[in-house]
Amino acid sequence: MKFATYSADGKTHYGAVTDDGMIALNDDFPAWPTLLDAVRANGLAALAQAAIGKGLSHTDFQYEMVLPNAPRILCVGVNFPDRNAEYKDGSAQPKYMSLFPRFASGFTGHDRPLIRPPENHTLDYEGEVAIVIGKAGRRIAQDDAYDHIAALTLCNEGTIRDWVRHAKFNVTQGKNWDRSGAIGPWLVPFTDANQLDDARIMTRVNGEVRQDEALSRMMFPIRREIEYISTFMTLQPGDIIVTGTPTGAGARFDPPRYLQPGDVVEIEVNGIGRLRNTVEDEVV
Amino acid sequence: MKFATYSADGKTHYGAVTDDGMIALNDDFPAWPTLLDAVRANGLAALAQAAIGKGLSHTDFQYEMVLPNAPRILCVGVNFPDRNAEYKDGSAQPKYMSLFPRFASGFTGHDRPLIRPPENHTLDYEGEVAIVIGKAGRRIAQDDAYDHIAALTLCNEGTIRDWVRHAKFNVTQGKNWDRSGAIGPWLVPFTDANQLDDARIMTRVNGEVRQDEALSRMMFPIRREIEYISTFMTLQPGDIIVTGTPTGAGARFDPPRYLQPGDVVEIEVNGIGRLRNTVEDEVV
Repeated sequence: MKFATYSADGKTHYGAVTDDGMIALNDDFPAWPTLLDAVRANGLAALAQAAIGKGLSHTDFQYEMVLPNAPRILCVGVNFPDRNAEYKDGSAQPKYMSLFPRFASGFTGHDRPLIRPPENHTLDYEGEVAIVIGKAGRRIAQDDAYDHIAALTLCNEGTIRDWVRHAKFNVTQGKNWDRSGAIGPWLVPFTDANQLDDARIMTRVNGEVRQDEALSRMMFPIRREIEYISTFMTLQPGDIIVTGTPTGAGARFDPPRYLQPGDVVEIEVNGIGRLRNTVEDEVV
Repeated sequence: MKFATYSADGKTHYGAVTDDGMIALNDDFPAWPTLLDAVRANGLAALAQAAIGKGLSHTDFQYEMVLPNAPRILCVGVNFPDRNAEYKDGSAQPKYMSLFPRFASGFTGHDRPLIRPPENHTLDYEGEVAIVIGKAGRRIAQDDAYDHIAALTLCNEGTIRDWVRHAKFNVTQGKNWDRSGAIGPWLVPFTDANQLDDARIMTRVNGEVRQDEALSRMMFPIRREIEYISTFMTLQPGDIIVTGTPTGAGARFDPPRYLQPGDVVEIEVNGIGRLRNTVEDEVV
């Protein structure tokens, strides 16, 4: 069972995803007005139960960012060995991971356009797996880390590359352009360690493979990410961790291959799904 | 009139602050369950009106972080000339400001302890003015910037200094320890440019002045902050911008003077108020 946030009939809904359309569930759970509320209440199993035998609600709909009101999204930077080498600064594997928050406003949903702003055209893709926390915790041990994950989804951690290095420190202004990235299409409940341990991520631009890597090659595995982040902040249900992108973003080509209007970017991970986005110039 | 979020009788309230206690207002505005909702609805004037002639609700209360559910808090780094020089890296004034998000969970309220964790004892203070956005906008011109500010408050942008440089980029993990900083005590409605333009910030530790600076000396004035940030993201009511700290944080002394349990830190700005916090070791 997969769960998505979507809009139809001028309203935002959440529900179960089928091959033929959406089974709306929000009206069945007035205490959980958004999918985030369901996650916070550890309610994905209840949603799945409610969807059984229920007919389709919407066949004409648009995906939204999967948790549009997620208050905390933390991204892990430079988390694959080749990607660390891409920086060509001679640094060995770092001792600690690089982390940066992104606001939900920086992400759109599946099958919707990433927005290239008029100020700068270095819009770049980064394919990543995102985990959604389902159980609160502080100072979580690596052995227990997976117990805190409720669901998995995909992220195109779209970036305005030139703006990442505007400042002496911090990538904030390159990573938070409105709707420059995407999270979705849906949440897949996390029930088995192999969903992450055996996962392979692939990013295609207009059908051409640009990133193709096993998650097992991460320098900082997801268990370690949860351990480290929860050292300084209490993880809460609904928190999203975007776990890091492999080598092969457009900036690393010579010359760089940034996204252009009309491009189609697809992030695919076995067992989670395929996040597809087009690219459009912003209309100002 | 000043407005605060506080707890009393086991519940969280918001209301108007008087010398003798709190006038609870949340029950008068069921459509605005939190102070953030009132800010989002441009409701501070209505709150002020409702408080007139109303008696005290609570004299025994604890301040909370002033907008505990604020979803977006953006901090400006290294924003005074002497502070840029403090980095001793020979850099001229940067072209663009450094920006980093902090989560609301990193802040406590007025008169409550900053928490020093057992993992690292380099807890440091940074006194700053914080602005609260009251009107949405994208690509806001500097001349219009002040029209988008609803209220002012104060921030002790408390930092675990050693963790700021854990990673190659980004200060995230030094800036987001649970309750390592504070925002408050209250919101002061912003009605006059001089509230910012003539403001002077002073930070004291155990009564000793450590920071004392005019906001007018910022390298990136608040009008420019709003212009720049709104270039990449649509500012929304309830967004908080923490505008930058002057020279004089504890890390810059030789040897560094980090905060110790029992210390009292006070951030004071004329016309806004005084944010006072003690320091306590975390009980794990």
